[in-house]
Amino acid sequence: MKARFPFAVVFYVIAAQIGHAQDPLPSWNDTASKKAIVAFVEKVSKEGSPDFVPAPERIATFDNDGTLWAEQPIYFQFAFVIDRIKALAPKHPEWKTKEPFASLLKGDMKGVAASGEKGVMTMLAATHAGMTTEEFSRTVADWIATARHPKTGRPYIEMVYQPMIELLAYLRANGFKCFIVSGGGIEFMRPWTEKVYGIPPEQVVGSSGKLKFEMRDGKPVLVKLPEINLIDDKAGKPVGIQMHIGRRPIAAFGNSDGDQQMLEWTMAGDGSRFALIVHHDDAEREWAYDRKSHVGQLDKAWDEAVAKGWTVVSMKEDWKTVFPAR
Amino acid sequence: MKARFPFAVVFYVIAAQIGHAQDPLPSWNDTASKKAIVAFVEKVSKEGSPDFVPAPERIATFDNDGTLWAEQPIYFQFAFVIDRIKALAPKHPEWKTKEPFASLLKGDMKGVAASGEKGVMTMLAATHAGMTTEEFSRTVADWIATARHPKTGRPYIEMVYQPMIELLAYLRANGFKCFIVSGGGIEFMRPWTEKVYGIPPEQVVGSSGKLKFEMRDGKPVLVKLPEINLIDDKAGKPVGIQMHIGRRPIAAFGNSDGDQQMLEWTMAGDGSRFALIVHHDDAEREWAYDRKSHVGQLDKAWDEAVAKGWTVVSMKEDWKTVFPAR
Repeated sequence: MKARFPFAVVFYVIAAQIGHAQDPLPSWNDTASKKAIVAFVEKVSKEGSPDFVPAPERIATFDNDGTLWAEQPIYFQFAFVIDRIKALAPKHPEWKTKEPFASLLKGDMKGVAASGEKGVMTMLAATHAGMTTEEFSRTVADWIATARHPKTGRPYIEMVYQPMIELLAYLRANGFKCFIVSGGGIEFMRPWTEKVYGIPPEQVVGSSGKLKFEMRDGKPVLVKLPEINLIDDKAGKPVGIQMHIGRRPIAAFGNSDGDQQMLEWTMAGDGSRFALIVHHDDAEREWAYDRKSHVGQLDKAWDEAVAKGWTVVSMKEDWKTVFPAR
Repeated sequence: MKARFPFAVVFYVIAAQIGHAQDPLPSWNDTASKKAIVAFVEKVSKEGSPDFVPAPERIATFDNDGTLWAEQPIYFQFAFVIDRIKALAPKHPEWKTKEPFASLLKGDMKGVAASGEKGVMTMLAATHAGMTTEEFSRTVADWIATARHPKTGRPYIEMVYQPMIELLAYLRANGFKCFIVSGGGIEFMRPWTEKVYGIPPEQVVGSSGKLKFEMRDGKPVLVKLPEINLIDDKAGKPVGIQMHIGRRPIAAFGNSDGDQQMLEWTMAGDGSRFALIVHHDDAEREWAYDRKSHVGQLDKAWDEAVAKGWTVVSMKEDWKTVFPAR
């Protein structure tokens, strides 16, 4: 009873063993943060361990902006909004005198900011609604392939954190299912998260607008409406998790007060759990901001992390590298 | 360079080969329906085939009521609602004179029906809202473990279709990711779909109410509100698919007009696609109903299936067995 391909099988087994023997998190310094991650992953994935968690329940959720990719000097989705408004402006001559478009087209960001939440909703409606889901997906895919970060000149999908990419792969290799749970738009992330993070569209949770099914020339389409369905931020994150995943994560990763409730929800379950906050304290290699920042403010969640012993990652101390090598 | 466990590996390889050689759909008769299923699965999962679809895109969606389990004499979730109202009645003396509760508690189903859509919403609010997601989940789990079908006396989770259970396993074995997309409640299905169908909570899409995150005695909870979030039926099914999955299925399975738009949405994509409708034409082993039925009406979707050459399964002709052996 000889098997036909023992060599190939043996090769994979050995490769897997070598893989495990190597450091799965080479971009992390050998500090307490890394040790806490590895200790957690090993105890929940080792059969027979008192902290063992069956693979289907190994759900991990990740914030995106500031946790998996950068969010300075402005949220990248806002850079997309600005580029879209500029691109669509020739078709909207009325925008020259209509706020917040008029200020934005003149490059007057203070004027845009003055338009407040209403201005944001107006810009979102103009750039994220009124087209089909497929049209929007293509627009995002085109933008992400060509747009460049204003400071580094790199494509936005290279503004991701190498240590977090390794962490995603490490968790997956240990039977975890990783989800994004972001305040960003669900349809803005899905066109590229599978390629960049290995996270497929069905594992992306985000803010969303309502959709409408209709027939156009005998073909069904889904039209994006200018109405909010879910704001997947702060108290909306546990809601998004329940809506989409339907079970409580055992590990959650964030960087700001927008992630506080997700971390609380994760930690309030039974058994072994893990919460991590990325602290942006590296002005040299990335940016340094926390309690007073308008983008990715980290204040209350930081206090809670310290009080409860959650892992707080110092980008400066814990990360060997920040962005992927060019 | 000898591997440590070639025997175990070889055993699994051989077991997998034997498994593949056996009929993966033993409860299906060898008719055109079965042949169409197998032909589709083989062509999309065979690398090098002109119809090959990469595994991550092999998304299949299944309606639940009437497609994976029975739906007669009433939708099983409605049986749950009735049982819950009876169980909660002692705490609600006012229900004795308040419709539709008064009629229901007297067993007057015509009176309940007369309360119309408003009555349904009132009963749903009384039984599906006002508690936390965890409390509701436990209530469903308790009910499904004890309640019995009025005609067969079997637990509801044994009122599932054996041929469809085999189909789910066959698709999974060929790299498909199977989702439920049901008009039924998402939180009503999730407590048992993993055990019964092998479909985890995060792959269940259904109708849902809004949720609210709040702190109770310092512990975070999600409270079920009496407000509709999504009616995942008819034109709501493609919406639910896009919201939750974010990519178009390549195969969809239903049994009623409530599934028509899901099948249309699935078939309108590029490449090889598959649509199937289960026709309930077996009064002896199950029930026979279609165009005039109040439950699981199959009328327009049937016409479209015939016109477009979708696979229409005759329970009577195509299925060797209907329910799992006792």
